[in-house]
Amino acid sequence: MNLKIAVLSGDGIGPEVTLQAKKALYAIGVVYNHEFVFEDAYIGAIAIEKTGKPLPEQTLNLCRNTDSILFGAIGDPKYDNDPTAKVRPAQGLFKLRKELGLFANIRPIKAYPKLMNSSPIKKEVLEGTDFLVYRELNGGMYYGEKTVNEAGTYATDLCEYNEEEITKIAHLAFKAAQSRRKKVTLVDKANVLETSRLWRKVVTKIAKEYPEVTLNCLYVDNAAMQIILNPRQFDILLTDNLFGDILSDEASVISGSIGLMASASLGDKHSLFEPIHGCYTKAKGKNIANPIASILSVALMLEHFGLSAESKKVIAAVEKAIICKVVTVDLNVDSLFGTNEVGDFIVNYI
Amino acid sequence: MNLKIAVLSGDGIGPEVTLQAKKALYAIGVVYNHEFVFEDAYIGAIAIEKTGKPLPEQTLNLCRNTDSILFGAIGDPKYDNDPTAKVRPAQGLFKLRKELGLFANIRPIKAYPKLMNSSPIKKEVLEGTDFLVYRELNGGMYYGEKTVNEAGTYATDLCEYNEEEITKIAHLAFKAAQSRRKKVTLVDKANVLETSRLWRKVVTKIAKEYPEVTLNCLYVDNAAMQIILNPRQFDILLTDNLFGDILSDEASVISGSIGLMASASLGDKHSLFEPIHGCYTKAKGKNIANPIASILSVALMLEHFGLSAESKKVIAAVEKAIICKVVTVDLNVDSLFGTNEVGDFIVNYI
Ligand SMILES: CC(C)[C@H](C(=O)O)[C@@H](O)C(=O)O
Ligand SMILES: CC(C)[C@H](C(=O)O)[C@@H](O)C(=O)O
Repeated sequence: MNLKIAVLSGDGIGPEVTLQAKKALYAIGVVYNHEFVFEDAYIGAIAIEKTGKPLPEQTLNLCRNTDSILFGAIGDPKYDNDPTAKVRPAQGLFKLRKELGLFANIRPIKAYPKLMNSSPIKKEVLEGTDFLVYRELNGGMYYGEKTVNEAGTYATDLCEYNEEEITKIAHLAFKAAQSRRKKVTLVDKANVLETSRLWRKVVTKIAKEYPEVTLNCLYVDNAAMQIILNPRQFDILLTDNLFGDILSDEASVISGSIGLMASASLGDKHSLFEPIHGCYTKAKGKNIANPIASILSVALMLEHFGLSAESKKVIAAVEKAIICKVVTVDLNVDSLFGTNEVGDFIVNYI
Repeated sequence: MNLKIAVLSGDGIGPEVTLQAKKALYAIGVVYNHEFVFEDAYIGAIAIEKTGKPLPEQTLNLCRNTDSILFGAIGDPKYDNDPTAKVRPAQGLFKLRKELGLFANIRPIKAYPKLMNSSPIKKEVLEGTDFLVYRELNGGMYYGEKTVNEAGTYATDLCEYNEEEITKIAHLAFKAAQSRRKKVTLVDKANVLETSRLWRKVVTKIAKEYPEVTLNCLYVDNAAMQIILNPRQFDILLTDNLFGDILSDEASVISGSIGLMASASLGDKHSLFEPIHGCYTKAKGKNIANPIASILSVALMLEHFGLSAESKKVIAAVEKAIICKVVTVDLNVDSLFGTNEVGDFIVNYI
């Protein structure tokens, strides 16, 4: 197979972890005889510095014309802590998600047997946990109109959803449930929000087309509790953009470290794969960032292109690193390797 | 002391747990020679049934003219699962909070040594956790304009905040921090939301008036993780209405059960005390609901009126019940008592 991949490694630890992911993908190419062509482009704070814009035209054009996108992380305290900043790194990511129609962000949440000790949650509670968060990625509070009055004393954010947006991701979620444990949990705040009531109405209607899948609904406050109390109950957790952001980060504690969590952002035509962790500016350049989330993003990418054996190989390599304790400091095991060394180990295994 | 207390026990398990709280308060009155006069009134689904309104005028008037309010729980699947319902139980609570200017909801989060085993989180992680969530309660998405188009295919919710709303609760939070570990953590989503950037700006300014208190800011997705990964880091967690709703429910897993969590809602003139758990309709009338959250609400009420010894007595009684394992099924200990029996035990101890 021939794949052209845009590499948007971004800010903070983005470049160093993405480098390991590229190495892993390259190794897969060599072993399985695929040609992966990488093209690097700027996004985020680094793009603002180089071009004045968080998502330069050139980057967007490249992404429109590649088979897939490997994304690192964006953000910089310089902009994020300045309430008056006019351009912000995150805008680059929002625009990219919207322009490419990446409407579904999928985050696998799994308790890794070898890593249960690094999770703050008890083993008995974690065991057997295996669910997917389906987060809507093109709507909600992220994209609704924002205002500030002239005096800077009053601000608003609009949350908006329409039936079509909800329908698209709901179908994906129900289809995923069909090939799994046949359970969709819709998370909303329907006792307060009008948009949540729309979600509930639309999703309940769609559920009728999937009679073998059970739908149940949970308020977001309760869901935030249930994810920790009884994570095994979930199979597909479907929710809006903002709740998905909060709950999937929360759920990352299940796997032991957010440094292990990969995600896929899918649209009708495009796909993007990224670790869910952020730019972690403090760790930048220190060779301590965990590259596994980025490498597992590559596994999701391979799976997406039907390269199952290749994807499994990457996962096996990661598991091997974990078993051999060739992992970074965030995993709390009694050994200590750098970003590069973990990447090298995984590449060698492949 | 003479106190007139409005009792709004509401729906679901509200009445049965509130009854235990009344018993406890009555007992305190007898022992310490106070006169507590209770007046019951309807709110929520029961109020809709009786009067057509989730917050009848009569209830609101009573609340305006009492010294404090003891609240149970509201909600009913009949309304909450019906997206077309015109009146909803929760509206009664929102209106009450707004009309009485109850702008600060304070939720103590504590790891009880005797109950650490019932928490899903590991003991090493929990130990020493003791923080307060300060949730803004009169603004944000709960009160912003809501719209649905005629076809019912598009909906919006507006999140709005002004400087004054943020200022009021921020001062309370910093004052609380002064008499504690001197740390305020502001939780927002300033990389996305304009209202969050306003929060960050206003709170950062106010922080300057409290030089001995350290302020730090956390994105809500990260906070949802940190609450589980390292709950000890928090002293005062300050946040908006919606994030506060989600995070304080999530944080309840720290104490072992949401059935233990009480909260105070304070305004300039009024005060309301309630368990943070909901109406839990399935448990209604079964004598299995945990009355401790409601009884601890009474402890918060007593503290609020400067009755420290009385408040400590209630807490001691609750701790005694926990030590003696006279607790309900949600606490996962190897004994089993009913709502009433736990209430009686606590009353007898007092
Ligand atoms: C960087 C940030 C704006 C982003 C988001 O909130 O969507 C991130 O948290 C994520 O989840 O991808
Ligand atoms: C009942 C519900 C509407 C309410 C809220 O969201 O505020 C509850 O969850 C709470 O936290 O008091």
